[in-house]
Amino acid sequence: MPRFKLTLEYNGTAFVGWQRQKDGRAVQQALEEALEAMCSTPVETFAAGRTDAGVHASGQVVHFDLNRDFTADRIRDGLNFYLREQRIAVLESSIVDDTFDARFSATARHYLYRILNRRPPPALDAGFVWHVPVPLDADAMHAAAQVLIGHHDFTSFRSTECQAKSPERTLDHLAVSRVGEEIHITVRSRSFLHNQVRITAGTLKMVGEGRWTAKDVKTALEKKDRSAAGPTAPADGLCLTRVDY
Amino acid sequence: MPRFKLTLEYNGTAFVGWQRQKDGRAVQQALEEALEAMCSTPVETFAAGRTDAGVHASGQVVHFDLNRDFTADRIRDGLNFYLREQRIAVLESSIVDDTFDARFSATARHYLYRILNRRPPPALDAGFVWHVPVPLDADAMHAAAQVLIGHHDFTSFRSTECQAKSPERTLDHLAVSRVGEEIHITVRSRSFLHNQVRITAGTLKMVGEGRWTAKDVKTALEKKDRSAAGPTAPADGLCLTRVDY
Repeated sequence: MPRFKLTLEYNGTAFVGWQRQKDGRAVQQALEEALEAMCSTPVETFAAGRTDAGVHASGQVVHFDLNRDFTADRIRDGLNFYLREQRIAVLESSIVDDTFDARFSATARHYLYRILNRRPPPALDAGFVWHVPVPLDADAMHAAAQVLIGHHDFTSFRSTECQAKSPERTLDHLAVSRVGEEIHITVRSRSFLHNQVRITAGTLKMVGEGRWTAKDVKTALEKKDRSAAGPTAPADGLCLTRVDY
Repeated sequence: MPRFKLTLEYNGTAFVGWQRQKDGRAVQQALEEALEAMCSTPVETFAAGRTDAGVHASGQVVHFDLNRDFTADRIRDGLNFYLREQRIAVLESSIVDDTFDARFSATARHYLYRILNRRPPPALDAGFVWHVPVPLDADAMHAAAQVLIGHHDFTSFRSTECQAKSPERTLDHLAVSRVGEEIHITVRSRSFLHNQVRITAGTLKMVGEGRWTAKDVKTALEKKDRSAAGPTAPADGLCLTRVDY
């Protein structure tokens, strides 16, 4: 049975996240309904990143098995037809070896967190940025971010509801830069804990405001206590941009 | 009575355009309601560009007279409070000389037209781009665009419903470039005819597809007949980015 790999872009605003939930509509559900409408058979899909409610993707990766003689291009175009009102688009489709697993084969996940750092609120980018009206020092944020790089126990930087067995992760890249009126936080790791990127953004924002130093971030990490780090930044600013295999 | 100048950003999707209409909600109406809520007096506003339904702005300029002792900053922050659910934001506010007129004092208007030129439809930028799935040649579009630069009778490039007395305009700048998966058309003129930028985008798209040459664009201009030019591109891709005084 052929295994398909898809790269997805989606606007997470109207969804409860990637994964099916009891209440609300999930990206997974929308995709599986489109697959069933197109292929007349139920299909289960598996994603690289279980993005939360309101989190966007420009490079989510999904796999599924399908017992149909469809080309990869036909899957892409057919799904884009069925998904046309859903703010989900299939960017790429390919047939892969059945050892490929979107979640477990991933070697790195890349996220972008966007802060709109100006006094007026966003009109054009509402839903895609965290609006922080007080001026932030991006250089100080970048410098402080470096204490999080490497292999650490990230207990302070994960949701208290995180279900991962181990709180240890290896952060390969974390950079902060100013891009016009925005501050972009880019981050890369083999895998992330629940809310890890958003808690990182919320903590670095405190550094940007001058309320915290790099040393405070290091202390928060070492405390291994969620309440020692900064707040969880809103989902709006977060986007899963790429998954490496 | 102090005259205020505002710079506005707005998402035009939910509006019938800048100007009040019999049906639907106009940006002007939302702004004037916010002003009245804040200042407890009816206020009439005047804009540099009468953007159409669905057209966005990142640099619309508006003026109004207000018989209240408000600072420019208070106007900006107060309006942003009242407009917070409307996808309209006041970027700048200043008190100007009462000879300033947002519409008639303008020396140049700048627009950006965005085409998403890839096979999959937009999920993140839906409503902000024209989706053209067939590959476009941006260099050919740019070269052809140059025949429109300068002072011309733009009858072929204005809506048949355009109410401007003269079809003559001077196009100062028209450039086409590829930016990743997008094609950006930037344009500048003292003033534009109704639908002029969208008809220009629709015509240049035909060049990008290889169906028209620069010579065909020149012929269309010389015919002084709306039906000689290309189709009117959708409002989604258009944004008023700046007004010069």
